[in-house]
Amino acid sequence: MQTKPFDLSVKALIRDEKGRVLIIKKSMQSRFFAGKWDLPGGKVDAGDTFDEALLREVTEETSLIVSLQHFLGATEDQMPDINIILLFMEAAVESGQVRLSSEHEAYEWVSQYELVGKDLSDQIRPFVVKYLK
Amino acid sequence: MQTKPFDLSVKALIRDEKGRVLIIKKSMQSRFFAGKWDLPGGKVDAGDTFDEALLREVTEETSLIVSLQHFLGATEDQMPDINIILLFMEAAVESGQVRLSSEHEAYEWVSQYELVGKDLSDQIRPFVVKYLK
Repeated sequence: MQTKPFDLSVKALIRDEKGRVLIIKKSMQSRFFAGKWDLPGGKVDAGDTFDEALLREVTEETSLIVSLQHFLGATEDQMPDINIILLFMEAAVESGQVRLSSEHEAYEWVSQYELVGKDLSDQIRPFVVKYLK
Repeated sequence: MQTKPFDLSVKALIRDEKGRVLIIKKSMQSRFFAGKWDLPGGKVDAGDTFDEALLREVTEETSLIVSLQHFLGATEDQMPDINIILLFMEAAVESGQVRLSSEHEAYEWVSQYELVGKDLSDQIRPFVVKYLK
């Protein structure tokens, strides 16, 4: 019994020196989760290690240089044609200021309490609720 | 603050038609966890997707052809020089009979109840206790 293919995605919970978490709002032109708040990150392509993929995606989306601190948890997002496994990593800012790409239209640094109250993408909500509440 | 590097490993919980789980015993010559019971699987190398890596490792270690069914959970194994993130996937046997490589010296099909009582490698015990007990 063959099942749907799997993809691996990685997301970064980036904290500033006050412990606040960086969230970024997907543009209204996004194909998925338009206008929803998300965590930086993206898909691990073949040829990438997951940590290299995450550092690259974070820099592309936020222009921050971060370091990965530790593993927080993982969830599965069952889509119609594919199952996406999401790894969540805590990260710390090493250098840079947030500057968004065209994929996102806003960012905020929020407390964990504020985070769970945000209009989050369905892809990250299960993790946020389970691990941070 | 840069931290230890991360590796990604994948492990398969392979079930037979009775729901029993395949465990394999590491040879006494193994560098890590010699003589301990383990689940088939291994490291995801750069250039591999995690699902391809898992299917390949399972076949190398057991000669079984399996299909990945769904994601079960993930843990982190903090080693002195590296942090290993372990993804656990449920898998079903598609074809073949178990035939071990020189890396392992025995195999058993066990119930979930029997599984938690086995002398498991420290790498898989946290997952087994958390998800299967």
